[in-house]
Amino acid sequence: MVLQSFESLKKRLSTTKQAPKRVVVANATDEHTVSAVMTLFKENMLMPTLVGDQSVIVPLLESLSISKEEIAKLDIIDVTGDEEIAFKAVSLIRDGLGDVLMKGHIQTRDLLKAVVNKETGIRQQKVLSHVAINEIPYFHKLLFLTDGGMMLTPDVAMKQEILKNVLSLTKQLGYETTYVALLDASENVNPKLQASLDAKEIKEAAKNGAFPDAVIEGPISLDLSLSKAIAKEKEYTSPVAGEADVLLVPDIVSGNLLGKSMVTFGKGQMAGLVLGATVPIIITSRGSTTEEKINSLMIACAI
Amino acid sequence: MVLQSFESLKKRLSTTKQAPKRVVVANATDEHTVSAVMTLFKENMLMPTLVGDQSVIVPLLESLSISKEEIAKLDIIDVTGDEEIAFKAVSLIRDGLGDVLMKGHIQTRDLLKAVVNKETGIRQQKVLSHVAINEIPYFHKLLFLTDGGMMLTPDVAMKQEILKNVLSLTKQLGYETTYVALLDASENVNPKLQASLDAKEIKEAAKNGAFPDAVIEGPISLDLSLSKAIAKEKEYTSPVAGEADVLLVPDIVSGNLLGKSMVTFGKGQMAGLVLGATVPIIITSRGSTTEEKINSLMIACAI
Repeated sequence: MVLQSFESLKKRLSTTKQAPKRVVVANATDEHTVSAVMTLFKENMLMPTLVGDQSVIVPLLESLSISKEEIAKLDIIDVTGDEEIAFKAVSLIRDGLGDVLMKGHIQTRDLLKAVVNKETGIRQQKVLSHVAINEIPYFHKLLFLTDGGMMLTPDVAMKQEILKNVLSLTKQLGYETTYVALLDASENVNPKLQASLDAKEIKEAAKNGAFPDAVIEGPISLDLSLSKAIAKEKEYTSPVAGEADVLLVPDIVSGNLLGKSMVTFGKGQMAGLVLGATVPIIITSRGSTTEEKINSLMIACAI
Repeated sequence: MVLQSFESLKKRLSTTKQAPKRVVVANATDEHTVSAVMTLFKENMLMPTLVGDQSVIVPLLESLSISKEEIAKLDIIDVTGDEEIAFKAVSLIRDGLGDVLMKGHIQTRDLLKAVVNKETGIRQQKVLSHVAINEIPYFHKLLFLTDGGMMLTPDVAMKQEILKNVLSLTKQLGYETTYVALLDASENVNPKLQASLDAKEIKEAAKNGAFPDAVIEGPISLDLSLSKAIAKEKEYTSPVAGEADVLLVPDIVSGNLLGKSMVTFGKGQMAGLVLGATVPIIITSRGSTTEEKINSLMIACAI
């Protein structure tokens, strides 16, 4: 079970027999966020819990054509103050009252501070990492790109944690085997290039069983990861060639460049999640579209 | 005078009044290379000098439908042995008998060894760097990406040399002002991210006059470099926003990923040159198409 597109993900969500996932929105006073959440709520794909100033949330819902009757049925937790809102939203997750945490009109750092709090937070894994899930017309399935958004320059141990986070996601999404490309400038190990040394080490760890249910290749270049034809031309053989599900990048700069290139000239659609907490966290940026927020919610609600 | 496409470059070359540039091919026994060179020779865009084993070159030319009369007029220098061929080809450039050096059926390292030889070579600048020139449907003009092919992890001083090399190229191509994006994951300077610190330093050097005829911005993200609409949405203003000619990347991995993404899912066409010698050097890889070799030759012959 591999995801081809956001459309196929939507189909799957709308035909699933599970109860809709509960999405906790931290400061639900941002139009794009609330609009995305309510769109999927209307389609019975999620149940929202809206945390924030009720006197702002209710008029916002009304402006989005939600009726008074519907609003009365919604779970709105009236809290003010960014710190208080973040704490409350995270507490709801911690108490088992939510399956997904979503950032509304709040600074990312304020929300993450509550997430990683040792006493009251919800961090589960060693690192929190970002995954961008991209659908590009060029490729026949979704591409999971990590980490182009959170970890700046991870060392090889951190890269393995990033990999664990994303493999846990694909497994929950139902991938039996996940094909991973440890990206580099070429398929050669070059002692002067840390990315290639790290890739070699991770591939060896994989051979020793560190990443079950995954086929891991690296160092490998982008074109060999995405194109069977180019791999054939270059006489390069690997099960990952042309079949990558996950693109693990060496650092945030290369990951960000690649992610942006997929969206801009690759004409892609994306979703974004923060992994490593007890639930997926959606922290799309100020500039991201409602569509990106909807895609992110669908991924988070599918697991 | 800015180049929109390889087609506009071709038009310019075919209408120029200058004598065709002399292209020295080091071991002209590779079909794709010789085919590219002869295609442009037939269109009167270059004059080839073919270095290598004459008993292999002549039959190859015949197989490409070059007549005996034409072959008799060609400059073929009969040399065998990779080291000897590299030395001879570089010597021809050194003696002023060639304007462009092109790799044929020879290892890149063998050719570059002759290029950088202190006694007999043709290195001119402090570093040899690679530039990929990309035409992508998404963007309205050619994009010069450097360095995704040669320098592995340049420090800030080397990055400035790479920048000098590419600015010398755009100037020779007739660009009055070159817009440069010092790429990073975002537009913020982050003390933990070397790419952003280097970008800041290079931008400051530019303010102090280090790079005349260039407008330099950085750190800047890919989408802000390529899209005026996204820049407007994010309330980001810079003359480089949406107008980048040159994309300077932090290292070979990010540059290679970006270059490959332009060609694969960006549906681009590319050319590649090595800069920093007395003449441009074409070192397209074994796998590169005749089209890429032709594009590279056109750029090299246009300066």
